[in-house]
Amino acid sequence: MRLLLISNSTNPGEAYLDYPKEHIKNFLGDRAKNAIFIPYAAVTFSYDEYEEKVNNRFAEIGHHVTGIHRFINPVEAIENADAIVVGGGNTWQLVKILQEKGLMKVIRKRVKKGTPYIGWSAGSNIACPTLKTTNDMPIVEPDKFKTLKLVPFQINPHYLDDHPANHGGETREVRINEFIEVNRDLFVVGLREGTMLLLEDKELVLVGERNARIFKFGQEPRELSHEDDFNFLLS
Amino acid sequence: MRLLLISNSTNPGEAYLDYPKEHIKNFLGDRAKNAIFIPYAAVTFSYDEYEEKVNNRFAEIGHHVTGIHRFINPVEAIENADAIVVGGGNTWQLVKILQEKGLMKVIRKRVKKGTPYIGWSAGSNIACPTLKTTNDMPIVEPDKFKTLKLVPFQINPHYLDDHPANHGGETREVRINEFIEVNRDLFVVGLREGTMLLLEDKELVLVGERNARIFKFGQEPRELSHEDDFNFLLS
Repeated sequence: MRLLLISNSTNPGEAYLDYPKEHIKNFLGDRAKNAIFIPYAAVTFSYDEYEEKVNNRFAEIGHHVTGIHRFINPVEAIENADAIVVGGGNTWQLVKILQEKGLMKVIRKRVKKGTPYIGWSAGSNIACPTLKTTNDMPIVEPDKFKTLKLVPFQINPHYLDDHPANHGGETREVRINEFIEVNRDLFVVGLREGTMLLLEDKELVLVGERNARIFKFGQEPRELSHEDDFNFLLS
Repeated sequence: MRLLLISNSTNPGEAYLDYPKEHIKNFLGDRAKNAIFIPYAAVTFSYDEYEEKVNNRFAEIGHHVTGIHRFINPVEAIENADAIVVGGGNTWQLVKILQEKGLMKVIRKRVKKGTPYIGWSAGSNIACPTLKTTNDMPIVEPDKFKTLKLVPFQINPHYLDDHPANHGGETREVRINEFIEVNRDLFVVGLREGTMLLLEDKELVLVGERNARIFKFGQEPRELSHEDDFNFLLS
């Protein structure tokens, strides 16, 4: 299986999808592929606009995506794709539409068989067993919380340590501590912005300069860098 | 109907439930009441501890609560209560347990008939038609998103304008704009910390010095103060 699970599309002050583009190029290779793009996490802008934003950056690395909304038969489009790219936005909206269109199963099947998968933000979240570690507001009600389960652990994208000053709401760490309290068998990877997880065959590594923060019930949170072994997350 | 819907239990640097206590006293009156406390939003601490934390503050205003977890028959406990108090924590956990115990309907019925209802944070969120404007992480999967619908609009508790520096994740306003895009008929009240909504009979007012920010699809967000009329939210 080949996965590139990116925390965030864009670092503040940079162009959309700029920082991860070289990693995307390395992952996809030099030759242009029939890559399908899933823009369903977009809520306040159109799928066409989203596709264009992604293609602006992909063009710089010799690649191109086609939005799944252009196909009459989206299941067939997934089956024929050489790569599957899932963009960020609202995780709930993304999951609801994928479920309604019956696409979860076919994506999972194809990726399990070797089709490379790239996701960022919501697109990384749905590679996990459930959407339960999303940061997004539940603006719609999906049929269920179950997602692709391409990896056996949960990712919290956009993981952050900071907390707005003079604010009483929960920190991200408090929220994840609640999650592991009631989901004791699952690891959670707090994936900081500017970093990504790369899975090639059965080798999982962290890419990027910042640490990932690993949470599991009954354990102190651990800070791991790109030099550390992440394969324990796969068992 | 009588509702006191508080944004947050605690302002930074203050004791638990300190800032709203005088408003709670005004709302409940001088005489001690048989007030039932629903602690189900607690995830990482016990219901006994939660009840004690609340009673520490309530004692200062001549009141007292009894946790619903002490009753063999929680439905009966709600039916006999003179006031219902719902604490904050994780909204998903709260909703799931209320649904599993079949308590949504009886709380709604009693409050509609006049039993005073006090909620803060998650407890205010569930007074709305759904939990869809919660800020909390969906650590558990409730049966449905529908909640008490004591008011016809949505509250976003802990509403904040600030955003951590150098962070690419969505601001609260971006999240609510996504909500109104797909829930076009609903008002959302961004209820800043230190403020609350008070409904007495059919009169809705804001309490506190900070403005509320009102969102509705197709309208510019509006800043309203405690001097403004909030009754348009009830129709």
